Amino acid sequence: MEERKLRELLNSLSLDEKIGQLIQLSGEFFSAKDVSLGPQKKLGITKEMVDLCGSVMNVVGAKETHRIQDANLKNKKHPIPLIFMSDIIYGLKTVYPIPLGLGATWDPDLIQKAYRNTAEEAYASGNQVTFAPMIDLARDARWGRVLESTGEDPYLNSRFAESMVKGFQEDLPKYGIASCIKHFAAYGAVESGREYNATDMSENRLRQYYLPSYKAAVDAGAKMVMSSFNTLNGVPVTGNKWILKDILRKEWNFDGIIISDYAAISELVAHGFAQDNKQASKLAMNATVDIDMKSPCYANELKPLVTEGELDEKKIDDAVWRVLKLKNELGLFEDPYRGSSEELEKKSVLTPEKRQLARKVSTEAMVLLKNKNNVLPLNPEDNKKIALIGPYENEHELLGLWAVHGDRKETVTIEDGFKTYLNSDKLLTAKGTDILRDKSMFKGIGLSEEQIEKIVSSDSVEKENNDKAIEVAKEADIIVFAGGEHTIESGEAGSRGNLTLPDNQLHLLNKLFELNKPIILVNISGRPMILTDIEPKLEAIIQAWFPGTEGGNAISDIIFGKANPSGRLSMSFPYAVGQLPVYYSQFSTGRSVRTSTHSSRFMSKYLDIPNDPLYPFGYGLSYSKVCYDNLKLSSKEMNGESDKIVATIDLQNKSNVDTTEIVQLYLQDKFASVVQPIKELKSFKRVSLKANEQKNVSFDITSDMLRFYGTDNKLTVEPGEFNVFVGPNSDTDQYDSFELK
Amino acid sequence: MEERKLRELLNSLSLDEKIGQLIQLSGEFFSAKDVSLGPQKKLGITKEMVDLCGSVMNVVGAKETHRIQDANLKNKKHPIPLIFMSDIIYGLKTVYPIPLGLGATWDPDLIQKAYRNTAEEAYASGNQVTFAPMIDLARDARWGRVLESTGEDPYLNSRFAESMVKGFQEDLPKYGIASCIKHFAAYGAVESGREYNATDMSENRLRQYYLPSYKAAVDAGAKMVMSSFNTLNGVPVTGNKWILKDILRKEWNFDGIIISDYAAISELVAHGFAQDNKQASKLAMNATVDIDMKSPCYANELKPLVTEGELDEKKIDDAVWRVLKLKNELGLFEDPYRGSSEELEKKSVLTPEKRQLARKVSTEAMVLLKNKNNVLPLNPEDNKKIALIGPYENEHELLGLWAVHGDRKETVTIEDGFKTYLNSDKLLTAKGTDILRDKSMFKGIGLSEEQIEKIVSSDSVEKENNDKAIEVAKEADIIVFAGGEHTIESGEAGSRGNLTLPDNQLHLLNKLFELNKPIILVNISGRPMILTDIEPKLEAIIQAWFPGTEGGNAISDIIFGKANPSGRLSMSFPYAVGQLPVYYSQFSTGRSVRTSTHSSRFMSKYLDIPNDPLYPFGYGLSYSKVCYDNLKLSSKEMNGESDKIVATIDLQNKSNVDTTEIVQLYLQDKFASVVQPIKELKSFKRVSLKANEQKNVSFDITSDMLRFYGTDNKLTVEPGEFNVFVGPNSDTDQYDSFELK
Repeated sequence: MEERKLRELLNSLSLDEKIGQLIQLSGEFFSAKDVSLGPQKKLGITKEMVDLCGSVMNVVGAKETHRIQDANLKNKKHPIPLIFMSDIIYGLKTVYPIPLGLGATWDPDLIQKAYRNTAEEAYASGNQVTFAPMIDLARDARWGRVLESTGEDPYLNSRFAESMVKGFQEDLPKYGIASCIKHFAAYGAVESGREYNATDMSENRLRQYYLPSYKAAVDAGAKMVMSSFNTLNGVPVTGNKWILKDILRKEWNFDGIIISDYAAISELVAHGFAQDNKQASKLAMNATVDIDMKSPCYANELKPLVTEGELDEKKIDDAVWRVLKLKNELGLFEDPYRGSSEELEKKSVLTPEKRQLARKVSTEAMVLLKNKNNVLPLNPEDNKKIALIGPYENEHELLGLWAVHGDRKETVTIEDGFKTYLNSDKLLTAKGTDILRDKSMFKGIGLSEEQIEKIVSSDSVEKENNDKAIEVAKEADIIVFAGGEHTIESGEAGSRGNLTLPDNQLHLLNKLFELNKPIILVNISGRPMILTDIEPKLEAIIQAWFPGTEGGNAISDIIFGKANPSGRLSMSFPYAVGQLPVYYSQFSTGRSVRTSTHSSRFMSKYLDIPNDPLYPFGYGLSYSKVCYDNLKLSSKEMNGESDKIVATIDLQNKSNVDTTEIVQLYLQDKFASVVQPIKELKSFKRVSLKANEQKNVSFDITSDMLRFYGTDNKLTVEPGEFNVFVGPNSDTDQYDSFELK
Repeated sequence: MEERKLRELLNSLSLDEKIGQLIQLSGEFFSAKDVSLGPQKKLGITKEMVDLCGSVMNVVGAKETHRIQDANLKNKKHPIPLIFMSDIIYGLKTVYPIPLGLGATWDPDLIQKAYRNTAEEAYASGNQVTFAPMIDLARDARWGRVLESTGEDPYLNSRFAESMVKGFQEDLPKYGIASCIKHFAAYGAVESGREYNATDMSENRLRQYYLPSYKAAVDAGAKMVMSSFNTLNGVPVTGNKWILKDILRKEWNFDGIIISDYAAISELVAHGFAQDNKQASKLAMNATVDIDMKSPCYANELKPLVTEGELDEKKIDDAVWRVLKLKNELGLFEDPYRGSSEELEKKSVLTPEKRQLARKVSTEAMVLLKNKNNVLPLNPEDNKKIALIGPYENEHELLGLWAVHGDRKETVTIEDGFKTYLNSDKLLTAKGTDILRDKSMFKGIGLSEEQIEKIVSSDSVEKENNDKAIEVAKEADIIVFAGGEHTIESGEAGSRGNLTLPDNQLHLLNKLFELNKPIILVNISGRPMILTDIEPKLEAIIQAWFPGTEGGNAISDIIFGKANPSGRLSMSFPYAVGQLPVYYSQFSTGRSVRTSTHSSRFMSKYLDIPNDPLYPFGYGLSYSKVCYDNLKLSSKEMNGESDKIVATIDLQNKSNVDTTEIVQLYLQDKFASVVQPIKELKSFKRVSLKANEQKNVSFDITSDMLRFYGTDNKLTVEPGEFNVFVGPNSDTDQYDSFELK
């Protein structure tokens, strides 16, 4: 539709019709036989508003979206199609590893392809917008939503934010889907790692560390932004003019749609920010939140606010305009199904090619944390018996909490994968124990006693499982233990105060340790877990995250050496809960244990635990041995902001195994008017190295890498000395330095 | 000296002489035979600067201070006396409980008396300034310096800040000592509870929660302020113009001396804030830090900075003027000993009266956390055998890490105290185990292997100790276990990641639990510890802190019922490390578990631990049973800012034991443009209740209690509804509400 016509359409709408465009409801509003008795009544809005509603959340599938679209269009005076938006975070039907695993690939280009595939599936299935990527900076493993983040680093997160947005949107307007980035802003810093808790930080920290990934996504063209649940410095983001209007809209020139998070506008009352839904609606509108996701606020309150002169209708027009513009841009006025069909869906979803890419992504996401005596990879040809033990041995739930639309039946289990490598005479299996037996954890999420009984085995069955596992283990030469977190333990509202394996798994593991056989842990989890106590007793550890549809294949490819692990952590694995939050890019402090040479008490440390995490950011092993040597800078001086310096380093693969090395460049601004971290990732390269190959790798260091936010909260760059580190992870101490003149 | 003459003196000083006044050195600089070979050489300053130095730290005692004063005056052209400043934090020779225990008294008037006594001891001993009170808001029990703080609440901390400053200074200028408050500002919020770590927060949080106690101390007339070690939002406080100059000096009109913390000016280099000591000196001077505590910076760098035109000499003059003014105000020019003498010292120190007050303070500091079946108080007349077991049974080190000048030999041990109540046939004792046997903890603080061997018993002695304790316990009817933290585990640089009792104590306790006898824990610690695992197995728990010189008497007074416990926690006792930081005055969040009635997953909580601490702020039991009833407000409306409302509540002591109840008033601003905490302490009263007495208690609620910092960071008050809570601790749910019109 031409813009002129679209404007005419807007002008022809009644106030009710306009408000309808600013409302998002979920599928059940359009499914109940008589909606007046169901969800609509519960939410407390009128049937008319349901009919006028502009968008639908979390309905996927061509058949159902078409049905809803058809029925809704019939009821409308002006035929404005619905737009379908869903939580399609890391895959629709072909599910990838959780984003924390995607972060571990350090391969934004690959992830862009994966997200393009997801966009294809979503497009075919009648969805036009995804509530992704989630790009919150995450530095506290207690928080369950670290699952949805690519990690703790502003630079790495920014690269992924761009690639994910581009992957979703690269075929727009014709194909693909629009990206709604979330959760803006700084939701990742919830205090004490507790879900929905307050966030508080200086503007300096916000701008320098927390905002860059959102900015990168906006600059990459993201069509929508979701405001976050948290308060930011005392003001809930859903009604926070400063962050939404002053920064996002004015500074960053974002003119797309801002949508609230689920029911967040009405929750402004619970926050103690608005007295009632009416005030909440006004505050959200004034902060330029365009769409009210699943709350009665806009539906009931905007009209009285306008008629009573409390709210300028112009603000509603602006919001509606943004909604209509997106619908128009996506071609919904021309084709309300936007090309989706059941046929296309069948052809697009879970294709062999898509599965193949998912397997590659999942393989790249695996992080080899330990490999003593090179116990891995296992050779299927060896005359050894392998016991695959543990609750994830043949578990289909490898998708994680936020693969809302994924089909667990389609998952390749770890056993499935092992069987493609091992004859049955070499493979022994046993579940050993449940994933989680602490019933209180299931009660806390609203399950009934009966439902819980189905998940948690009886004590006698548990004992049988235990015994069977020990029997099987005794027969084996090598044990692969497939354990980890239960799906419910991470994701939204999955905050935890303890981050070890569940007790029942530890119990079984400790019995297995007594057998003195090599044990390899495959850890399935939605967060960095604390492996400190068991690590010394394990021969090898593979961090497998929730690895997605092709998880079992990917794990097997790594274990049997078809793939050489290249994953690197994008979030520190803590040594203990007492360190949290813990991240590599800390400040030196005035009394650093790193730089101090004496052994006095009076240093920045704990008495009983180390400062450093068990595994640092950027860390991961491979089956090769790559040496870094001979770091050189093209100059020891950078002359002005347009100059650049080239850092080079020699890499040598001192093994007979081809590999991909992720070479990481960190900088440190040694002295600045606002103290800078001891190290910050500024660039990285994926470098293929054949067996025994040598390569020289180079990085351009430019002055934009040296910028930081000054005390005036403006970007600045200050002359002085900078350290340059290049190495395989954030713990590298190979460095040189230069001076910016 | 008249101000005019003082000004003449300043004008007559050479630049070197002026700089000398801005330098503080420690005792060893004045004790070595040939200082040029000792500390002076190590610090890298000239002999001349040592002679010109203006102040001395941590030398106490009339004899030594006189000697140093005499020798120093001889070497000076202009006879400007030294001023002696020391860490006299919670007592000099008569040591009180650690300030976290003082906070638990909720008795600022009593503490003012105690601090006046301390001032008397210090005055007599030749000290003129104390580096106290420490009034940092402390919400993370990992941080060791919570020991020195009165706790987590801005209001309570402010009341103590005032009373402590007044106690030190109420006899100025003639007697008493000057108070140097510390650590300005927000040092208590070091990230991850790690000592010296970065602090980062919004200006709103800083002003509303972290600054009030400092402001109260400045308003109470504190003569000096110590800048803190931490960075505040990226800028080390020692060189932070915004917080020191703009806020402290300009907004608050503070014209006293600002002194750096120990070596902190030179540590600006380690922070990555200054390139070298010279720049560090300039930055500190520009931030109006007057005195350089124990670093080579001012001594070596100020002169070249001035002569090279980098620093205006006027700034040095201003700083020197502030130093001279304090010396003059205290009368040092007239009497460089300022009344101190060995005779006065002997008469003033550790007098029976002072010990008596210390015993009272220590008794009031005790918090009874649990008392199942009213097992306490013990009746010495009962025909029961009592076993006093545990490493603190007869330990003299009850003073805590920062009682730098206290004499452990003067301490009344717990056994000493028990013996005043029990005949020897009823009292059995056994050490049972060492306080701490983890040798790595002692290595981390610089002790030699040999020194550690003396502290940690051999394994065979430990076994004997264990066995003896079990034997003794078997003979007893009731067990009092005196355990807790080792002194080295808290205080400066005493950050810990785990907060339970040391393993060896838990091991012994678990063996004692097997005997199925009532066990009372007396917990000695410098912080809130995590007692969650042992709490259910204990009959009673007394939190005794490091209770000071009279600790053993105070503990016994409580245990044998001579005193009725009235202490209330001023800092939450966490349920688990995974909650930290945890404090009562949180925000509601949009999805509070407190106000929500349904049992869904999607609430602000952890899956595996509660949100609430084990024992909340304000909590503590007594031997009485006091009921609160009939909360009433004089009006449901406050009409404008000059109006007030009176809240009244009926208290009834439903027991036969006289008691002192600490009645606490909390307010909640239900809706505000900056979200306010679910509860905030605004007032409290100590109410004496005879056995079975009834009393009506009233509180004035005034509009200044309703003020908060708005988004513009200015104090404001907004009309609307307020909740009023009155009860025995922060967990009270007795409330009413009113409206501010």
